[in-house]
Amino acid sequence: MKVIPDDIISFFNPQSLAIVGASRNFRKWGAIILHNTLLGGYQGRIYPVNPGEKDIFNVPVYPRLSDIPEIVDLVVIVVPARNVMSVLEEVQQLGIRACVVITAGFSETGESGRKLEREIARFVKRHGIRLMGPNCMGLISMIPQRLTVLMPAIVPEPGPVSIVSQSGNVGYSLVRALTRRGLGICRSISSGNEADLSTVDFLHYLGEDPETELIISYIEGIDDGRALLDTLKRVTRKKPVIVLKSGSTGAGASASASHTGSMTGRDDVYSAAFSQTGALRARGIEEVEDFATVLCSQPRPTGRRVGVLTLGGGWGVLAADALERAGLEVVRLASETVATLDTLLPPWWSRGNPVDTVAGMKEGALFECLKTLLACEYIDSVMLLGVGYGSVRGSAIKNSPYSDLYEMKKLGDIFIKADEEIARGITDLIKTFRKPIVPVVDQGIIDQRGSFVEALQKNGILLLTSPLRGANALAALTRYGEYLSRI
Amino acid sequence: MKVIPDDIISFFNPQSLAIVGASRNFRKWGAIILHNTLLGGYQGRIYPVNPGEKDIFNVPVYPRLSDIPEIVDLVVIVVPARNVMSVLEEVQQLGIRACVVITAGFSETGESGRKLEREIARFVKRHGIRLMGPNCMGLISMIPQRLTVLMPAIVPEPGPVSIVSQSGNVGYSLVRALTRRGLGICRSISSGNEADLSTVDFLHYLGEDPETELIISYIEGIDDGRALLDTLKRVTRKKPVIVLKSGSTGAGASASASHTGSMTGRDDVYSAAFSQTGALRARGIEEVEDFATVLCSQPRPTGRRVGVLTLGGGWGVLAADALERAGLEVVRLASETVATLDTLLPPWWSRGNPVDTVAGMKEGALFECLKTLLACEYIDSVMLLGVGYGSVRGSAIKNSPYSDLYEMKKLGDIFIKADEEIARGITDLIKTFRKPIVPVVDQGIIDQRGSFVEALQKNGILLLTSPLRGANALAALTRYGEYLSRI
Repeated sequence: MKVIPDDIISFFNPQSLAIVGASRNFRKWGAIILHNTLLGGYQGRIYPVNPGEKDIFNVPVYPRLSDIPEIVDLVVIVVPARNVMSVLEEVQQLGIRACVVITAGFSETGESGRKLEREIARFVKRHGIRLMGPNCMGLISMIPQRLTVLMPAIVPEPGPVSIVSQSGNVGYSLVRALTRRGLGICRSISSGNEADLSTVDFLHYLGEDPETELIISYIEGIDDGRALLDTLKRVTRKKPVIVLKSGSTGAGASASASHTGSMTGRDDVYSAAFSQTGALRARGIEEVEDFATVLCSQPRPTGRRVGVLTLGGGWGVLAADALERAGLEVVRLASETVATLDTLLPPWWSRGNPVDTVAGMKEGALFECLKTLLACEYIDSVMLLGVGYGSVRGSAIKNSPYSDLYEMKKLGDIFIKADEEIARGITDLIKTFRKPIVPVVDQGIIDQRGSFVEALQKNGILLLTSPLRGANALAALTRYGEYLSRI
Repeated sequence: MKVIPDDIISFFNPQSLAIVGASRNFRKWGAIILHNTLLGGYQGRIYPVNPGEKDIFNVPVYPRLSDIPEIVDLVVIVVPARNVMSVLEEVQQLGIRACVVITAGFSETGESGRKLEREIARFVKRHGIRLMGPNCMGLISMIPQRLTVLMPAIVPEPGPVSIVSQSGNVGYSLVRALTRRGLGICRSISSGNEADLSTVDFLHYLGEDPETELIISYIEGIDDGRALLDTLKRVTRKKPVIVLKSGSTGAGASASASHTGSMTGRDDVYSAAFSQTGALRARGIEEVEDFATVLCSQPRPTGRRVGVLTLGGGWGVLAADALERAGLEVVRLASETVATLDTLLPPWWSRGNPVDTVAGMKEGALFECLKTLLACEYIDSVMLLGVGYGSVRGSAIKNSPYSDLYEMKKLGDIFIKADEEIARGITDLIKTFRKPIVPVVDQGIIDQRGSFVEALQKNGILLLTSPLRGANALAALTRYGEYLSRI
């Protein structure tokens, strides 16, 4: 097992940081980067560098790196491309080992840029400096320093997910999507042109990083496919890795060539490689979000047999279709399971899988149905559809213009409490049975933040937003569980 | 062309409405239905019927249908299944022609329910009464009466989209999804067990309905496939129809059989049939939402050649992949187009399609690039990625704790104004060139409701939330455009 050298740690836990090219002009990246770092509440010491300024955003500015009263752990460079080399020379003279080069204008711009990038790469390699970029959007490292030295003004909650992205924009689209879903961010790396540190290096680091529980990697192209494979294989034994690989069509590959200048490689080769390594390939930003949601909040199932419990028939039909298409099995219920459910549900229930609870269910029956399914030795995971509407209805009743009539407020509270109890029940059942319960409700219901949604989220159980998305996410979770039980 | 008889109009534009089985007990559907109708602000006259009540929610209650001082246009029935027939007999005696039966407990519950349903069906057919349901969730008809006689407490904005759904829950999941996307609802029909009026009948009606501009149909199974085909073919000449067909796997079909009791039919037969009729088949609730978004806000392209304009390289690569996979062409730019773009963009732009504007673009260049692409005879539609972040950045600058420094407020306003101008520009260009411009931004950006998003929405241009979702929606729009130009 490779250890993580100190110079890599410097990127993610720097005690001090210099921003060379800091500016007060918000049309310049040097202002945005400094501003966003301050906004995030970086816990270390920060030193803007600019020979023409005394202070920016009330922070004292230093003319040169060598004027800073300490040797900083990390230097972020935002000066024009032609001046980057001279900054790196200062970095080398001061014995600093870690640099982020935000500056664009290198291999992505043509031959002269490629030449400049090669020079920089040779220089840092010769002197043992590690470099992130160039042509990148910066990085987030929330734990422990709350470092947000990046272009978009995003300050996520600290959490278990880390991202390494060959596109800054896609990386920050992912951060936004995960944040909306209620997932916290540990690191977010925009790897840029990868003149020195590559996606593979960062995957290795994140694999060893004790704060990172889940890794997401946006990949356009990789020079050393063998190293990627080996690294993924090693990392997925410890934590899940979701890969979003683009450039996989003719049009995409040609777009990618002009974006990062990287070779994209044959798509089927990548797909085969990923599945051998235990990495989960996502088909878009939505799937990354959904896979991360279940991987962060659910145990790993060891088989494909799914029980579906639904409070609405149509949702169950959509789920059954989606589960089967995703390669999972909507398992046939054993006669003793049907017999148990017969005691809980009205006689006209579906008497099969999906278990459609239909109208007329007794109070508390939902929880008992859920427990019945989880207790089945032949069921590996459960998908739960349509719960959470009760608390939204409860709130609607309480906020109704007629709420003073007929004890409606009291009834609203009863509906809300019932949903809270189910949410607590789900959390307990997941712990007891060590099987996933994937809850699916409309995004419109999540937006209303009823007590069901709140109670689940508080316990770290996140929601999926449609039968289709839930099924695909459960399939990915299952693939990972099966992979782990196979190796 | 069949005309729409008055008894069908009675469902969607009733001047008066009776709810038989109205209740003050919110645990009963009869209370929820009445409450939600009042909540929606129904413009007609409403008569709750219940022999045991004087008034509910401050509305006078009548003991029987025959006690109501007029012959109502529409009767909604929420009494227990065993009492439905006697209500229908009253309906017949009074000469009322339109009924919604919310009540469950019919063919979905087994043999005795099936028998009851057959009796009801025979009765209404004999007497010329039209019936929606039974076992349905009610209906929305926003135009002109604001009728929301349904189970969930949903009051959408009036708008161009109508839904007919064989599942009430799925229908209202769709209403929630469309509402979140900014689309208004005209009608929403939960067709239930379809003892009398069927999906085909409603599709025919919605096709003729002048207020409906787009139709969405959730289908589990259809008895008369030929009639469905013929109806779709007729309707899609006038307005687009999106079909969400479930029960298309073994698991889904068996789930559907116990849900609505309908035969689902072979999936490939349905697919072939839909594509012949011009109806667009969606693969889930998300695709319905996305297809509806572009169909309601964009002109129909007549070919598959797409120009991609992106403010971020990675988004462009994801879009190129997704467009090609969806069957569209990321068209090669002609040398004269590249030459024009050379005058607008820095020398290191991508010089191909996707047009990646890269950093360093001149002010106003984005609009000119967009115009250049639209003016190309060989480009049928444009996908625009990454616009709208400027106004969000502008707001962030204005709300920054440092906003008193360096005229940041002024700069924030400049960014916001620039985005508003682009939004207006997009609207004008769509009108001028009659080609779609599909804008894609993160949902997280839409949630922040920057000026770009607001200005576009105000002009009826709705946003897509990822390169993948945007590409699939544009592909559906293109399929419809090609279908129309072929017939």
